[in-house]
Amino acid sequence: MNTFGNQFRLTTFGESHGKAIGGIVDGCPAGLLIDYKLVEDELRRRREGDTPSPLTTRRQEPDSVEWLSGILNGTTLGTPIAFAVYNKDCHSEDYDTLKHCFRPGHADYTYQQKYQHRDHRGGGRASGRETVARVVGGAIAKMVLRTKNITITSRRDGYSIACTIQGLPAGVGNPVFARLNALLAYAMLSIPSASAFAMGHTPNDWRLPHDQFPDQWIPHGAGPTLTATNHCGGVQGGISNGMPVEFHVGFHPPATAPDGMLCRTEDGTLANVAPHGRHDTNHSTRLPVIVESMAALTIADLLTSTK
Amino acid sequence: MNTFGNQFRLTTFGESHGKAIGGIVDGCPAGLLIDYKLVEDELRRRREGDTPSPLTTRRQEPDSVEWLSGILNGTTLGTPIAFAVYNKDCHSEDYDTLKHCFRPGHADYTYQQKYQHRDHRGGGRASGRETVARVVGGAIAKMVLRTKNITITSRRDGYSIACTIQGLPAGVGNPVFARLNALLAYAMLSIPSASAFAMGHTPNDWRLPHDQFPDQWIPHGAGPTLTATNHCGGVQGGISNGMPVEFHVGFHPPATAPDGMLCRTEDGTLANVAPHGRHDTNHSTRLPVIVESMAALTIADLLTSTK
Amino acid sequence: MNTFGNQFRLTTFGESHGKAIGGIVDGCPAGLLIDYKLVEDELRRRREGDTPSPLTTRRQEPDSVEWLSGILNGTTLGTPIAFAVYNKDCHSEDYDTLKHCFRPGHADYTYQQKYQHRDHRGGGRASGRETVARVVGGAIAKMVLRTKNITITSRRDGYSIACTIQGLPAGVGNPVFARLNALLAYAMLSIPSASAFAMGHTPNDWRLPHDQFPDQWIPHGAGPTLTATNHCGGVQGGISNGMPVEFHVGFHPPATAPDGMLCRTEDGTLANVAPHGRHDTNHSTRLPVIVESMAALTIADLLTSTK
Amino acid sequence: MNTFGNQFRLTTFGESHGKAIGGIVDGCPAGLLIDYKLVEDELRRRREGDTPSPLTTRRQEPDSVEWLSGILNGTTLGTPIAFAVYNKDCHSEDYDTLKHCFRPGHADYTYQQKYQHRDHRGGGRASGRETVARVVGGAIAKMVLRTKNITITSRRDGYSIACTIQGLPAGVGNPVFARLNALLAYAMLSIPSASAFAMGHTPNDWRLPHDQFPDQWIPHGAGPTLTATNHCGGVQGGISNGMPVEFHVGFHPPATAPDGMLCRTEDGTLANVAPHGRHDTNHSTRLPVIVESMAALTIADLLTSTK
Repeated sequence: MNTFGNQFRLTTFGESHGKAIGGIVDGCPAGLLIDYKLVEDELRRRREGDTPSPLTTRRQEPDSVEWLSGILNGTTLGTPIAFAVYNKDCHSEDYDTLKHCFRPGHADYTYQQKYQHRDHRGGGRASGRETVARVVGGAIAKMVLRTKNITITSRRDGYSIACTIQGLPAGVGNPVFARLNALLAYAMLSIPSASAFAMGHTPNDWRLPHDQFPDQWIPHGAGPTLTATNHCGGVQGGISNGMPVEFHVGFHPPATAPDGMLCRTEDGTLANVAPHGRHDTNHSTRLPVIVESMAALTIADLLTSTK
Repeated sequence: MNTFGNQFRLTTFGESHGKAIGGIVDGCPAGLLIDYKLVEDELRRRREGDTPSPLTTRRQEPDSVEWLSGILNGTTLGTPIAFAVYNKDCHSEDYDTLKHCFRPGHADYTYQQKYQHRDHRGGGRASGRETVARVVGGAIAKMVLRTKNITITSRRDGYSIACTIQGLPAGVGNPVFARLNALLAYAMLSIPSASAFAMGHTPNDWRLPHDQFPDQWIPHGAGPTLTATNHCGGVQGGISNGMPVEFHVGFHPPATAPDGMLCRTEDGTLANVAPHGRHDTNHSTRLPVIVESMAALTIADLLTSTK
Repeated sequence: MNTFGNQFRLTTFGESHGKAIGGIVDGCPAGLLIDYKLVEDELRRRREGDTPSPLTTRRQEPDSVEWLSGILNGTTLGTPIAFAVYNKDCHSEDYDTLKHCFRPGHADYTYQQKYQHRDHRGGGRASGRETVARVVGGAIAKMVLRTKNITITSRRDGYSIACTIQGLPAGVGNPVFARLNALLAYAMLSIPSASAFAMGHTPNDWRLPHDQFPDQWIPHGAGPTLTATNHCGGVQGGISNGMPVEFHVGFHPPATAPDGMLCRTEDGTLANVAPHGRHDTNHSTRLPVIVESMAALTIADLLTSTK
Repeated sequence: MNTFGNQFRLTTFGESHGKAIGGIVDGCPAGLLIDYKLVEDELRRRREGDTPSPLTTRRQEPDSVEWLSGILNGTTLGTPIAFAVYNKDCHSEDYDTLKHCFRPGHADYTYQQKYQHRDHRGGGRASGRETVARVVGGAIAKMVLRTKNITITSRRDGYSIACTIQGLPAGVGNPVFARLNALLAYAMLSIPSASAFAMGHTPNDWRLPHDQFPDQWIPHGAGPTLTATNHCGGVQGGISNGMPVEFHVGFHPPATAPDGMLCRTEDGTLANVAPHGRHDTNHSTRLPVIVESMAALTIADLLTSTK
């Protein structure tokens, strides 16, 4: 289903070449001042990356948000906040060659298997453009977290993003299934092209030698000074311990090769197809804001759901 | 919350030194023949590991399952299947030293922060013993999958487990949030001491060079012969493509050192505490069956939820 | 939360005097042909009642639906179907007198208690105008049910509506909590101004004498000829038996008196306020289509959730 | 599914002649003192009615509760509270005649349609004995409510039960779908043999004349003195207003006639079957405690879910 979260939840909609991409944020507390500039800034980060460059993407849609409900005089009402970003700059005819063939490394084939009917234009629902709704929802979540002095940042390292949540108090999360780390893993693997997730300060040593594990207590430590190291990433037994929550997300590169792809046709043969339309050849600069958005949605939901 | 899944769901209960560990499987189809021997075998794998050894664990509870409901003449009724495994061999007094101190690398501190009241005996709810209920639920899920010719296996490599789901047809999963890979990541990170997850055949190359990605189609391929490689682990756009679903899970080693730990006391000072009671010094042999159980629950739920 | 249903679900948004009323239908099967005329007809029934009259309502908004996603060439994609109905004909200044006072029989006071911030204009989120989204969602649900030869009709009798679902096969529903009758009761009591619900052919005899109960079998009966009477309304033990599903819903009349109301001010005193703006003095003609819409959403969800 | 509630939730299990009836309460706050005597008293009310008499039921099982988890030293841990009531006094062979025939007014036929396999002994999962788990769960919910000075009582009037919730503050509930009155209607219609629900002080006048409606404010009133009448039953726009929450539930009498029933056989013919086993001929004295239990579960969940 297209809903993320339980008590603070985002439901999204939209195909890449449909009329609009958007969503509904339900469960946002009443009385929150909407920071429209933050929404704009986050959408710009998604569009251009943190270091904008003419090469990062070929699509230059303005992404202006139309707010449909839930806000009166710039302040939330506690009712659903609906928003839509209208799609422009669409050259749907560029995708006619993809109507009857399935690109490698894309969702074309699996959507066809599941639905027997798909929007072939620009990836349809599976397009990375869907993340526009996540970023708007994530910006609202960040506003909620800001009122609790919780901040989320991420560092850019190509297709591996390190994310840190600071200011989360101890005691947030759940034992057993809906652990804080499990919810973060779910959120991160839901991002298009995400393929790996690791908790903790250092992602590469899954099999830490015994003498480095566990994190040792600092005498009288508390909050961000609780332990000397943070191999566990601020989560013990599924619940935050007050240290920064740290994790890494790995992504695979875009599947569209600029010089053509061997596509599968409906009768099972292969055919070389040159990409038309807009395609990312490097989407790594877009990833930090999407990772942060999903982290913000996860934490806002946990704080709303947990007494 | 202590429920896993939506339509085929497992709700678990139990503390390590309480009266019983158990659960309720709800949504299991009526008419399924219960394979009691499979349940026994899986519980033995959890207890002893796939290569049993006197060293793997010190607790030798028999883990006999009492079936409380949902089964008539060995066949499921479609109603909730409740089960309990009574705890024996408990030396709760061994844990008295832990009443007022928090071990490093355990959930003692975070449970206290969240609940202000915890069962300090043997880890309480946070004990690895909780996974007994996952294994019983997973065995029932495996029975459901067996009727659809879906099998789940895993390979043992210390604290990194590789798991493969074979026979899953194309078209299972969801776009956007509840992607098959996201659901698997959630399931795996919910396992005690899990710290990392990666989709695909090879876990170590998150940043595959472009020329190895994406997986190329095999002409007229289908099911397990669809693509030449399986870097994506059988999932594209969140939906299965018919190839084997492959992923890796990384765990950290047990936190209890046999020769004592520096624990945090309630007033914030540190004290060396020698472990009493039962503790695993190497729990890696238990991991495969738990990984498979969570995978089975995930797939059974998806197949029950999806038309 | 503003979501109805589990697998076939409607999430709605919108305030009476905000920019739009709308929603997202998630879980609608792919390949369904959208009957735009049915949507229009149902919205007309909501606006004018089944017997249109200039007296039924003062607001004559056209209610044209903008479809934002989920449909390609008139056919559903299996992805979320988002829609918006823009609000026009708003005289928000008519409601300025209501900014600081609470009408009797309305949600003004309780919204203020819950949110400390409300949209006072035209009832805001609590306005009957919110049902526009239910009717659009219900129309889509009716299209799904039509493919299974299930029809829903209702008879108009002032503030008591009798509704019949025909064609529902035996075996739909759940035992224990999520009974078909419980889900219908939930759906109906969620309608603004609904106050009562009764299953069965005749609503007034809750305490049937023993000799009229239970419904007796017809020899070799099946489907709509299963039993001689239908006191149980086609549901036994929470599950449909193949007879028509019949129930009644009672509503209370609109609370706004045309000649003024004694409103509660913020300091607790009372003040007579004459109604400005648009108000229904008789909304009973709108009720049948809303009752049918909620019934359709309930059944579509059950049929999607149940294997 | 067999789960009631979202954040404070009860999952139940058990067939009438299976090994046990029971459930899991998840989401109960930590630190609550369990009042075992209240559980016993409520189970006695369920068993004997509020005015015990040798005629009310023929089954005199002791209903002693085995607590399996979630409690340490009489105090809740915040972890799932599992409990089981073992079935005794079973004469399953009394039901052999019902193996291949369907009683009128029971769930025999619909269960068979849904599951193709049912426990025919004593009604199986559809037996009124299932309510044992609701009463235990409801007792725990009542303990939670007691800490907030909320009390629930009901008046006995044959098959129509009037229930009152006192002490609920204003602002509890939700607009649109999950209204307080809709959640109560769902809870009540989920009770076996419930057939009708009405909000408000007086159940019989669904179509109140305009001059009696709406409830008028009392100047400077608040809480239980807010309005002069309580036709709305303490709920406006789906949210509590501080007045007592009042509603009525209607039930139909037991379907088992002491002198035989015309049952439907598997080949569609009818056959007269004399009831063996235990059957209620009047279950009205059991109803108040079940109504209160479901109301308590509803309110405890709302208070846990809502910030």
